[in-house]
Amino acid sequence: MLKPLGDRVIVTVEEQEEQTVGGIVLASNAKEKPQTGKIVAVGAGTVTDSGKQLPVSVKEGQTVMFDKYAGSEVKFEGQSYLVLHEKDLMAIVD
Amino acid sequence: MLKPLGDRVIVTVEEQEEQTVGGIVLASNAKEKPQTGKIVAVGAGTVTDSGKQLPVSVKEGQTVMFDKYAGSEVKFEGQSYLVLHEKDLMAIVD
Amino acid sequence: MLKPLGDRVIVTVEEQEEQTVGGIVLASNAKEKPQTGKIVAVGAGTVTDSGKQLPVSVKEGQTVMFDKYAGSEVKFEGQSYLVLHEKDLMAIVD
Amino acid sequence: MLKPLGDRVIVTVEEQEEQTVGGIVLASNAKEKPQTGKIVAVGAGTVTDSGKQLPVSVKEGQTVMFDKYAGSEVKFEGQSYLVLHEKDLMAIVD
Amino acid sequence: MLKPLGDRVIVTVEEQEEQTVGGIVLASNAKEKPQTGKIVAVGAGTVTDSGKQLPVSVKEGQTVMFDKYAGSEVKFEGQSYLVLHEKDLMAIVD
Amino acid sequence: MLKPLGDRVIVTVEEQEEQTVGGIVLASNAKEKPQTGKIVAVGAGTVTDSGKQLPVSVKEGQTVMFDKYAGSEVKFEGQSYLVLHEKDLMAIVD
Amino acid sequence: MLKPLGDRVIVTVEEQEEQTVGGIVLASNAKEKPQTGKIVAVGAGTVTDSGKQLPVSVKEGQTVMFDKYAGSEVKFEGQSYLVLHEKDLMAIVD
Repeated sequence: MLKPLGDRVIVTVEEQEEQTVGGIVLASNAKEKPQTGKIVAVGAGTVTDSGKQLPVSVKEGQTVMFDKYAGSEVKFEGQSYLVLHEKDLMAIVD
Repeated sequence: MLKPLGDRVIVTVEEQEEQTVGGIVLASNAKEKPQTGKIVAVGAGTVTDSGKQLPVSVKEGQTVMFDKYAGSEVKFEGQSYLVLHEKDLMAIVD
Repeated sequence: MLKPLGDRVIVTVEEQEEQTVGGIVLASNAKEKPQTGKIVAVGAGTVTDSGKQLPVSVKEGQTVMFDKYAGSEVKFEGQSYLVLHEKDLMAIVD
Repeated sequence: MLKPLGDRVIVTVEEQEEQTVGGIVLASNAKEKPQTGKIVAVGAGTVTDSGKQLPVSVKEGQTVMFDKYAGSEVKFEGQSYLVLHEKDLMAIVD
Repeated sequence: MLKPLGDRVIVTVEEQEEQTVGGIVLASNAKEKPQTGKIVAVGAGTVTDSGKQLPVSVKEGQTVMFDKYAGSEVKFEGQSYLVLHEKDLMAIVD
Repeated sequence: MLKPLGDRVIVTVEEQEEQTVGGIVLASNAKEKPQTGKIVAVGAGTVTDSGKQLPVSVKEGQTVMFDKYAGSEVKFEGQSYLVLHEKDLMAIVD
Repeated sequence: MLKPLGDRVIVTVEEQEEQTVGGIVLASNAKEKPQTGKIVAVGAGTVTDSGKQLPVSVKEGQTVMFDKYAGSEVKFEGQSYLVLHEKDLMAIVD
């Protein structure tokens, strides 16, 4: 299992088609990289200078939209994931 | 439905003509990108280092003017939107 | 009406001549862009990390001198305006 | 013995194969550098401006995934190590 | 009259000769721009994030030495001035 | 005697061989610059914005490992030294 | 007289020879610029955001070693000086 650190979240990457499950399609010619994913794990949040931990504002199971080119791709037990910082998440797809 | 995260707002993009609904036209040769839009959703605001949430100063339904080239374009259920950070909003068109 | 957001001010742009109304002329060869204007609207100010709103130090009706190339030009109901951040204002012309 | 300073951790670098012990393989063509390692030493943490020490969120013995190209390689008594800042650690492999 | 804003000061620019009034001459080949001037107006100071106003540490009438190339030149009622940020002032010439 | 200022430390630079005293050898082709040294003097530490002095976390006599290319080389009474910022120190060699 | 502002110090520049008074010689080929000087004047220190003044940690009469290429050269009443920020001072030569 992968446990993201800090304000990171791990999402499963959906193969992008003309019309995705969440219904999001890029407006322009940026179809080579997916922009939605389902959150499978969430970090404990950033620790501020005063030692306070700020929890991440999203949670496991949510579908999120994220900045194109954001995040790092990893493979774990044969499955592809994207590790993203919270700031790279633009919106929750409800 | 798209729920913007942090200090983001989502606006519907108006096709720009010589004279838009809000009456705003770019002074120079920057007509290839719209600069006004109607807010359809607003994030909960930024969380500061002390853990305080600063609400966004605009709200759903307002027409806003934003920096040229700002934001990320997305499509959701066939409709185009622009996701913008609050700092990219220049003025409310009343 | 345009209501500037944050620490922004909106000024009417005066066409620059050899000797402007405010009496300010650029010393060198930078005459292609005006540097004075009259403030027509002022934002509510920046909100700091502690949630405090810092009011803008200028007000409607004042003539201000601003950094060359600063601001964004917009047209609203046939009139040209310049949207500036407070930090771009150099001095009040009294 | 190497005692990392500040928020640094020292990891033993695993030679990367098609399928590593932790099961992590890079999705794309970045196989020339390993991305997992076992933590052998952890620094005391960053000291903030208020003089507070923020402990590092990982500990000795954990297997971590880190940003490609992050860290500095060193050799100590014939063994290779990677010195990383806490922020370069993406996730704990459990 | 010009009233500088924030931490700005306005100085009258002295034409630089081999030996200026303040006695300061640049050591190297940087004689194309003056480096001393007399302060004619001082802003109210910067407002910090906590809303506190930090007064500028120089005052009207003082001769100051400033970083070469710093500031913006303006003309007002036929006279040349230089608008400088406090941080650009290196020393008071007494 | 050289007394380092702020968070600086002064180290004696060891000529690097294939196997140094501390046992550290660079993994790759970076043998032209040493990476270990013995601390001979330590500054009083950084002063924070609140006026608090944060002492340096290392002390005289310790052998430290530092980032390649970090620091400034000086000679004092015929001996070579390296002046480093605390942040450039990676680990204590025990 | 020159009174440095903020965290600046003014030093007299010593012509560098193979073996200077302070005994410091640059290790490599950087002999074109001196690296030691005697402090002749010290600013009142930086004012922090909370309005607190942080005094400079060096004083008049001390010989200091500073970063190569740091500071601005000025001439005052026929004498050359270097104006430096406190952060550019590496060590006190005792």
